[in-house]
Parts: sequence; structure tokens; C-alpha cells
Amino acid sequence: MKPILIALLAAAILPLSGCAPGGSGDAGPVDEKAAAAVKERKAVLTLMKSNFVPPILMAQDKIPYDAAQAQKNATRLAFLIPMLEDAFATDTRGSGVETEALDVIWEKPDEFAGKIASAVEAARQLAAVAGDEDAMKAAAGNLGKKCGSCHDDFRVDDD
Amino acid sequence: MKPILIALLAAAILPLSGCAPGGSGDAGPVDEKAAAAVKERKAVLTLMKSNFVPPILMAQDKIPYDAAQAQKNATRLAFLIPMLEDAFATDTRGSGVETEALDVIWEKPDEFAGKIASAVEAARQLAAVAGDEDAMKAAAGNLGKKCGSCHDDFRVDDD
Repeated sequence: MKPILIALLAAAILPLSGCAPGGSGDAGPVDEKAAAAVKERKAVLTLMKSNFVPPILMAQDKIPYDAAQAQKNATRLAFLIPMLEDAFATDTRGSGVETEALDVIWEKPDEFAGKIASAVEAARQLAAVAGDEDAMKAAAGNLGKKCGSCHDDFRVDDD
Repeated sequence: MKPILIALLAAAILPLSGCAPGGSGDAGPVDEKAAAAVKERKAVLTLMKSNFVPPILMAQDKIPYDAAQAQKNATRLAFLIPMLEDAFATDTRGSGVETEALDVIWEKPDEFAGKIASAVEAARQLAAVAGDEDAMKAAAGNLGKKCGSCHDDFRVDDD
């Protein structure tokens, strides 16, 4: 890989990223880092949500059970949910960036990490049984409880 | 899983999703579906970008090579990039939803699918060699070329 080509690629990719590591400590870079962190975590949660909708609709009998769809969604959930740990690594308290994440995430990091670990386990279980209709429905419900438990404690209440 | 519990979970999760399948055909639901599709694809691309930044900075010698970081990012890229196929399945031409996706994506679907397949292959190659510094740097450059090639033809030109 020629250096000039790498530089061209970087010029094409990096200006839009907002993901350069580090930050100098003054207000500008800190806010930029927080904004990138919030964008990252919202992206993970967006994909988690869209991949959880079909299994939960199947569990409700609102759409027919589809083993291939359930397996695809479950496999993606089992991959995406562990990404939450990195996605919430940046403490964005006081950054001014709009977020539904509560400060308690960084006040009780062990408790938050425990919620994520519990959801990861539930997602892996869902992926393991997605081919069995009854087991998939039960596992989707269990994962939903893990999601709700974390939202109850660590996300702004929408009600 | 009791039906009432499933209903409560669904109430907690679904209102925010914008991902309910289908649409009745009038303008409202169609736009909602397009907005959800654009949100989904932007989420995939956001995570692709943030996971590609560290390897490309390593390839540029702007940050030190870190085998574990490169492997994590490469593994995630190899998982995320195949999601583009579903993420662009919804034709959002004429929806009015703001997007950098060009209409040619749905005018030349085979060409677009070929670009994705090529990027998937490059990401898998990156994941396979992430533990070897020189090979990782070359593979990151190769993946960058695939990204750029797709952006050239199928994304609004930012220049």
C-alpha cells in the first residue's frame, strides 16, 4: 500500500468520522468526542432495536414465525449487544450532547456492565434457540426483559 | 412467556422503533418506512466508519499498531459490512428523506451488490490477517479502496 494512496483514502474517510482518538482537553475537542460517542451508541442501539422487532413480533404472534429471519436477527443481536460496552465507554456527563443516557451509567459502572453482560447472555441464548419456535419466543421475551431492566435504571424515562 | 408480559415489553420497545414491517401505501407510512430505512443504513455506516478509523490510522502510522484493537475492529467490520445488503433493501427514491444515497443504487442493483460483496471480501481478509502488522496495513488499504469505489459511484459527492 503506497503512502500516498493511504493518505488519499484517509482524506476521504476521516473528515466525516468524528472518531479520531483522544482530545486535547479544551471544550471543543471534548464536545466533539462526546458527540461522536453518542452517535456511536445510538447507532448500536438503532441496530439492536431493528433486529429485535421481528423476533418480538413473532413472540407476540403479530407476524408468522420465520426461522431464518429469527436466526439472522438473533445472530446480529448477539454480535451487536457486546458492542455496548465500548459504545458507553466515553463518559458524556456534562457534555451538553443530547442523549437519553442517564449519569448513573458512569456513577455505577459495575451495575451497568452487569446489565450489559446479562443482555449479552440472553442474546446468545436467543441465537442458540432461534430455530425452535417455542424456545425462540421464550428467549425473545427473556431478552426483552433484560432490555427493559437496563432502560428502567439507565435511560431517561419516556413515560 | 405470559402474553401480558410480551405486550408490556412490546409497548416499551416498539413505539420508538419506526421499524414495523410493511406499510399501507399512502404517503405517511411510506415516508416512515423510508425514514426508518435511512436511519438503519446510517447506523450501519456509522459503525463501519468508527471501526475502520483505527486500522486506517495504524496503516498511516498515525497511531501505533495494536493487534488486539485491529482484530476487534476487523472482526466487527466483517460482521457489519454484510448488513449493508439489508440496510439498502428499501428503495427510498423520492421519499424526501435526507440521504447521501444516490438513486443509481436502485437503478443498478447488481452493480451495487457487487460493490458490497467486494467490500465484504476485503473486510474478511482484513479480519484474517489483523494479527500481522504488515498484512493488516495492506488489507486496511485494500478495504479503503473498496469503500472509496462504492462512495464514488453510489454516494453524493462531498467535494
